Amino acid sequence: MRLASFAVETPVGPARRVGVEHEGELLDVNAGYAYVLAMDGEAAPVDLAETIAPASMIDFLRRGQRAFDAAEEVLEWVPDADAETGPGGARLRYDPTEVDLLAPVPRPNSLRDYMAFEEHVANTLGDIPDVWYDRPVCYKGNADQVVGDGDVVEWPPYSTLWDIELEIGAVIGQRGTGIDADEAEEYVAGYTLFNDFSARDEQGEEMDAQLGPARGKDFANAFGPYLVTPDELDLPNADFSVEVTGEDGETEVWSEGTVGEMEHSWGEIIEHTAEAETLYPGDVLGSGTVGTGCGLEIGEFLDDGDTVSISIEGLGTLTNTVVES
Amino acid sequence: MRLASFAVETPVGPARRVGVEHEGELLDVNAGYAYVLAMDGEAAPVDLAETIAPASMIDFLRRGQRAFDAAEEVLEWVPDADAETGPGGARLRYDPTEVDLLAPVPRPNSLRDYMAFEEHVANTLGDIPDVWYDRPVCYKGNADQVVGDGDVVEWPPYSTLWDIELEIGAVIGQRGTGIDADEAEEYVAGYTLFNDFSARDEQGEEMDAQLGPARGKDFANAFGPYLVTPDELDLPNADFSVEVTGEDGETEVWSEGTVGEMEHSWGEIIEHTAEAETLYPGDVLGSGTVGTGCGLEIGEFLDDGDTVSISIEGLGTLTNTVVES
Repeated sequence: MRLASFAVETPVGPARRVGVEHEGELLDVNAGYAYVLAMDGEAAPVDLAETIAPASMIDFLRRGQRAFDAAEEVLEWVPDADAETGPGGARLRYDPTEVDLLAPVPRPNSLRDYMAFEEHVANTLGDIPDVWYDRPVCYKGNADQVVGDGDVVEWPPYSTLWDIELEIGAVIGQRGTGIDADEAEEYVAGYTLFNDFSARDEQGEEMDAQLGPARGKDFANAFGPYLVTPDELDLPNADFSVEVTGEDGETEVWSEGTVGEMEHSWGEIIEHTAEAETLYPGDVLGSGTVGTGCGLEIGEFLDDGDTVSISIEGLGTLTNTVVES
Repeated sequence: MRLASFAVETPVGPARRVGVEHEGELLDVNAGYAYVLAMDGEAAPVDLAETIAPASMIDFLRRGQRAFDAAEEVLEWVPDADAETGPGGARLRYDPTEVDLLAPVPRPNSLRDYMAFEEHVANTLGDIPDVWYDRPVCYKGNADQVVGDGDVVEWPPYSTLWDIELEIGAVIGQRGTGIDADEAEEYVAGYTLFNDFSARDEQGEEMDAQLGPARGKDFANAFGPYLVTPDELDLPNADFSVEVTGEDGETEVWSEGTVGEMEHSWGEIIEHTAEAETLYPGDVLGSGTVGTGCGLEIGEFLDDGDTVSISIEGLGTLTNTVVES
């Protein structure tokens, strides 16, 4: 299942919705589930759909499996429905190109970013510290600075070394603490692309003080376009690519390859993190950069006006343009 | 003005309230403001009080100056009121010892922790890197792991070096970006004590990988007991102390002195952080440890069952007990 958050223009301002992808269309999960409930003869289909499958992704995730079951019913019944709207009057289907795709979780509950791919660590740190093999390490990102597919990123004025990082974001779907690695992947609702925009000059300088990073990373985190459930993915064997198109229209492939294995699995990352902390629905965990998935590793940086597309097989393509602020 | 978040037991579960301190009592701001509005002849005093002075601190902060003005009116009119309850039936006054004091912002919107006191940096890092003088640096803490005054902290099983850090927490009260240092302190709603519990062994190991800290700090952040507005404080000249009482009842003064000046002022910290990021009401910024305000600096660590009280003149005393998990 591929879920999206999107905004629809309405006369009373933009409305945020949760969609599930079906043959190139986005089915509105909340409206569609109200439709399914009405067909079943439920007395209050709109109210029940608001409760079980809310139109805000973080609330949807907080409903747990019941919300995903509702989305499955939408996928089963809405594609063949004669109706254009649900019982509350909301549209059942959208063309993804006519709505504003948001980050799947527009405001994560929190953002931790790990560093789990050895090739990236070797390429950027040189000597890999022993502790990196011993445990998953992370910094925490800024969950208030999130953009989605197609959004423009304004580069901060304090930076001239503009870089990206191709990462995988795991979105937590269940509250938990004291989680065994073997069971930990049940806590992941799905995965999405994560472009961890990085001001390399600022990052390098601030990290000399042995904290962070902070301003080197905190101005923009891109996620999207979809939140893809784990059953649809084989991430270690998925192909990836980073492509950059300049203002002249020329596209350059910065990097491509296969994602490969993480030194610490998602299960190990979750077990480690949740040993004395509670994870919540809407927490986002970044994998760290896939090997060769950033400019720093290959001697490239972005220019004003560049459009960067990062892709991983199964997760799709996440595209953003960077401009001077 | 000294504000608190507290929980009251009710037959339908605990209710969270915002209180303002007056001569040792907590006046319920939401109930008290409804009382003031009713006395003024407002048609819908309870509804209006819910909107202007909500009983959740983060919502209260989001209302801005209007909410603080409401609390001023409560301080002016409620102490002499004959009534015991407001027009909605809610109590007007509480004895702080009969309620559960929470962290002033029980779930901050975010938590950044800086390192602004030179003596602490010199005592812990040895050679101070140049960049530390050049700009305020921070890591981001875990806003989901917050405790209040009187709460017990379970120490994580992965640590045997139990430490604390006496810090000041600044709570943002206004949304903003691109803020000048000169105007930045207007964005601070108030200050509170912050005990940044620190698992020194874990912290030292994980930071060898040049990220974070994370698990060394993320299990517990204590704030409280009050959020004190800036007009009541002279923090650089305030006395501070750290006292630890063992299970045997013996109290040891770990440290005492005067807070002193920060290398980077709150205004400079806010300007630096908000240059390409937006600050939100309920964001909490930590000052970093006041010089000699942690055990690492003076060769002391906590034991199972110790009760630690950190105090700063004007902010009060924040007390927590640490136990094995």
